[in-house]
Amino acid sequence: MVQNLNQLVHSVTYTIQQQDKEAFFENIKDLQKYDLTRIFIKLSSDEQEIFLEFISIPLLADLLSELDGKNQLAVIKTLDWKKVSLSVTEMNNDDLVSMLSQLGAEKSAEVLSYLDKALSADIENILAYPPETAGRIMNNQMVWINQSYTVREAVDKLKHFAELAEYLNYLYVIDDDKRLVGIVSYRELLLADMQTEIADIMQTRILKVDALMDQEEVARMIQRYDFVTIPVVDEHEKLLGIVTIDDILDVVYQEAEEDIEKFSASGKSIDFNTKPVTAAKRRLAWLILLLFIGIVSGSIIASFEETLEEVVALAFFMPMVAGMTGNTGTQSLAVVIRGLAKEKINTKQVINLLVRELKVGIYIGLTCGLLIFIIAYLWQNSLILGMVIGVSLLCTLIIGTIAGTVIPLILNKLNVDPAVASGPLITTINDILSLLIYFGIATAFLSYLM
Amino acid sequence: MVQNLNQLVHSVTYTIQQQDKEAFFENIKDLQKYDLTRIFIKLSSDEQEIFLEFISIPLLADLLSELDGKNQLAVIKTLDWKKVSLSVTEMNNDDLVSMLSQLGAEKSAEVLSYLDKALSADIENILAYPPETAGRIMNNQMVWINQSYTVREAVDKLKHFAELAEYLNYLYVIDDDKRLVGIVSYRELLLADMQTEIADIMQTRILKVDALMDQEEVARMIQRYDFVTIPVVDEHEKLLGIVTIDDILDVVYQEAEEDIEKFSASGKSIDFNTKPVTAAKRRLAWLILLLFIGIVSGSIIASFEETLEEVVALAFFMPMVAGMTGNTGTQSLAVVIRGLAKEKINTKQVINLLVRELKVGIYIGLTCGLLIFIIAYLWQNSLILGMVIGVSLLCTLIIGTIAGTVIPLILNKLNVDPAVASGPLITTINDILSLLIYFGIATAFLSYLM
Repeated sequence: MVQNLNQLVHSVTYTIQQQDKEAFFENIKDLQKYDLTRIFIKLSSDEQEIFLEFISIPLLADLLSELDGKNQLAVIKTLDWKKVSLSVTEMNNDDLVSMLSQLGAEKSAEVLSYLDKALSADIENILAYPPETAGRIMNNQMVWINQSYTVREAVDKLKHFAELAEYLNYLYVIDDDKRLVGIVSYRELLLADMQTEIADIMQTRILKVDALMDQEEVARMIQRYDFVTIPVVDEHEKLLGIVTIDDILDVVYQEAEEDIEKFSASGKSIDFNTKPVTAAKRRLAWLILLLFIGIVSGSIIASFEETLEEVVALAFFMPMVAGMTGNTGTQSLAVVIRGLAKEKINTKQVINLLVRELKVGIYIGLTCGLLIFIIAYLWQNSLILGMVIGVSLLCTLIIGTIAGTVIPLILNKLNVDPAVASGPLITTINDILSLLIYFGIATAFLSYLM
Repeated sequence: MVQNLNQLVHSVTYTIQQQDKEAFFENIKDLQKYDLTRIFIKLSSDEQEIFLEFISIPLLADLLSELDGKNQLAVIKTLDWKKVSLSVTEMNNDDLVSMLSQLGAEKSAEVLSYLDKALSADIENILAYPPETAGRIMNNQMVWINQSYTVREAVDKLKHFAELAEYLNYLYVIDDDKRLVGIVSYRELLLADMQTEIADIMQTRILKVDALMDQEEVARMIQRYDFVTIPVVDEHEKLLGIVTIDDILDVVYQEAEEDIEKFSASGKSIDFNTKPVTAAKRRLAWLILLLFIGIVSGSIIASFEETLEEVVALAFFMPMVAGMTGNTGTQSLAVVIRGLAKEKINTKQVINLLVRELKVGIYIGLTCGLLIFIIAYLWQNSLILGMVIGVSLLCTLIIGTIAGTVIPLILNKLNVDPAVASGPLITTINDILSLLIYFGIATAFLSYLM
C-alpha cells in the first residue's frame, strides 16, 4: 500500500498540469497497477486525458485491467482505436474477457474488431463459456511443451517466457493432439539431464479441471491441494489454459460477498457508493415480496381472532414465539449452506443431517420451552397459559429447525443455490408456521385458558 | 481430484494387509498430499499404524501438515520421538505453528523439545504473535540476499533453493542489519549482468506488512495487488518471513465462514459432523439470549394491553410490521458489514452513509407504507386503521434501516467485529423498536380507531 497516496496524487496532478512528462514518470515509476489505478480515478477528466496520453501501452493495459466497467468504457471512448487495439492486445486474456463482458455487446464487438484474428478468435472462444466457469476465468499465461521435447528444448522455451515467471512453476506437457499428458516442475527440469526426453521425467498423475467446471469448485480444488495454478482442458483433454490462484482469490471474495447478499436478502451489489434510489429499488424487490408474505401471517392471526379476543395475553408471546422460530431456522440454514459449500452430500448424509437437526431441534425446543413455561407461569400466573406457550415453543422450534434444514437441501437438489433461501425468507416462512402452531394449540386449550 | 479414491483406498489397504511395501509405494507414488491424507483417514487404526511405518519422513511431514488437530495428536502419539522429531523438522514453519497451536500446551512443548534449538526458537517466536496476524501465518520459505551481493551470487543462492520454486518469483534484499531494503524479481536477475551489484537493480518501492497486521488486511493487500507472496517485517523493518497466497486463500475461506456464522448467530464451528448435543449447546447460547430479548417485546405489548383489547385487528399486522423492520435492518447490516470488510471509512464517509441509508429508509418506508395502507384499508375497511399501519410502517422502516446501519458502525468504532451484530440480533432489536412505534401510534389514534 502506498502510504502517501494523496501526496502522490497531488504530485502527479502537478506534473500533469505542468505537462512535465519526465517528472510524471518519475512519480509513477515502480508503482503497482492497483495504486496507479487509484491515482488515475482521483484525477479530473481533463487530467485523466493527459494521463492517458502520457502513459505507455503496457501501463495502459495495466490500467484497463484494474478499472471497473464504467471507467473502462470511459477510457476506451477517450482513446483512439489504434491505442485501444495496442493496449487491449497487451492485456492478459482473462482481464480482457472480464472487461469485454462488462462493456456491452456493441462496444465489445468493436473492441474485438481491432484485434488480430487469432487473438479475437481466442477471446470469443473464452466468451462462449458460461459465466463463473473455469473456461471463463482461465488465462493463457502458461508454457506448454510437447512430450517429445528434450529437457534442453524445454529450458530454452522456458527462458523465452521468463516474463511470465510468476506462474512458471510447472510446464504443461501435451501430445501431438494437444492433449494434456503430464506436467514437469521447474525443479525437475533443473535436476534432469539436458538430453532426457520430457516424456521420461514428466508426472502423469495430474489434476486438471474441465472448462465447464463451476468456478467455486475450481477454487476448492486449488485451496485443498495448495496449488498456485491448475490446467483447464476441454472434453477431449485438450489443454485450453490455466486458472491462477490470484483470480481464484477474487472468486472466493466475490462468492463470499454474494452469500452475505443472499443471506440478508439485501439485493445485488449495494456498496457505500450506490445511489439511494438505486439501493432502495434493489432492496424493495425483496421487501415487497416479504410484505405480502407478512400479510399471510396477518390473515392467519385474523382467523384466530376469537381466540385472541378471549385471551389477549396470547399476543404478548406471539412475537417471541415467531422470532425464536425464525432464529433457529436461520441457524440451521447457515449450517447447511456452509456445509454444502464445502462438500457434496449423498442421500445417506442428507438423512443423517436431518436426524441430527431433528435431535438439535428437540434439545433446543425442550430447553427453551421449559424456560418460557416458567417465565410465562410466573409472569401471567397461569399454569395453562405457561403450558400452552411452552408446548408451542417446543413444537415451533423443532419445526423451525427442520424447515431451516429442509428448504436449502431441496433448493440444492433442484440445483438452485441454497443461499437464496435467505435469512429473511426462512424467518418469514417460519413466522407463518409458528403462528399456525401457536394459535392452533392455544385454540385447542381455549376452554382451560379462560 | 483423484477420481477413484475408494478404489485407491482398497488397493492401499490390500497392500498394507499384505505388508507389501513396494506395491504400497506404487499406489501412493505421485499422490497429492491432500489425497494421501484422505486415504490415511479412511484406514482402520491398525492399518494406519502400518501406513505410518511404511512412509518416508517427507511424506510423514506432508501428512502431519494436512491432518486436523485430533488426527495430528493421534499420529504423534503413535510415532516414536525420533520420527516425530525428524518429520516435524521437515514441516513448513507455518504448518508446524498451526499444528502446535492445536496440540495443547503440554504436547506442544514436548514436540518443541525434540527440535534443534534454532528451529524451536524460530517457532516459539512465531507462536508469540497473536492469532490471526501476519506474524502467525508467515513462513520462512523465502530466499533473502544481502544488497552487496552480485547478480551471480544471487543466482547461485537461488539455485540452491530451487526446491522452494513455487514461491521464488522474488528474492528479498536486506542490508547488514537484516532490514528489508528491496526486492529483485527472477526476471530481473535473468536479464542483468552477472557482475552487477544487487543494490543497483533492486526495486526499492516495495510493499510489505507488519507482523502484527490482521490477517484479513494482509489478505486484502494480496488480493488487490495480485501478489503471490508478501514480505513480513517487524517494527525495525527486519525481514521475518513471507505470507504466501495459498495460506491467504485458507484465511479468506475461514473468514467468510465466520461471517456467515456470526450473521446467522449460528454458533461457532457447527458442521455436518458435529454431534447433536454439541450443536444444540452452541446454538442455545444465542437462542436463550434472544429469548430474553423476546420477553422484552412481550412486555411492551403487555403494556399496550388496553389498546390491543379495544382493537384486536392491530394484532393482525403486528408480525408484519416487526418482520419488515427486522428485514430492512438486516439488509442495511449486510451492506455495512460488506463495505467495512472492503475499506476503512472516515467520519465524512460515515456521515454520507448515514444520509444515504436515511434516504433509502424514507424511499422504502414510503413505498411499503403506501402499499400496506391500501391493503389494510381494503381488508379491514377502515381508513384510520390503514393510516395507523401505513404511518407506523413508514416510521419503523426508517428507524429499522438506521438501526441496521448505526449498530455495526458503532461496534466497528469500538473495535468489535461488526458482524457480531448478527441478523437475528438486529431483527430482535428492531422488533422491540417497531412494537413501541406501532402501538405508540395506534394508542394515540385509539379514539378514532374504535
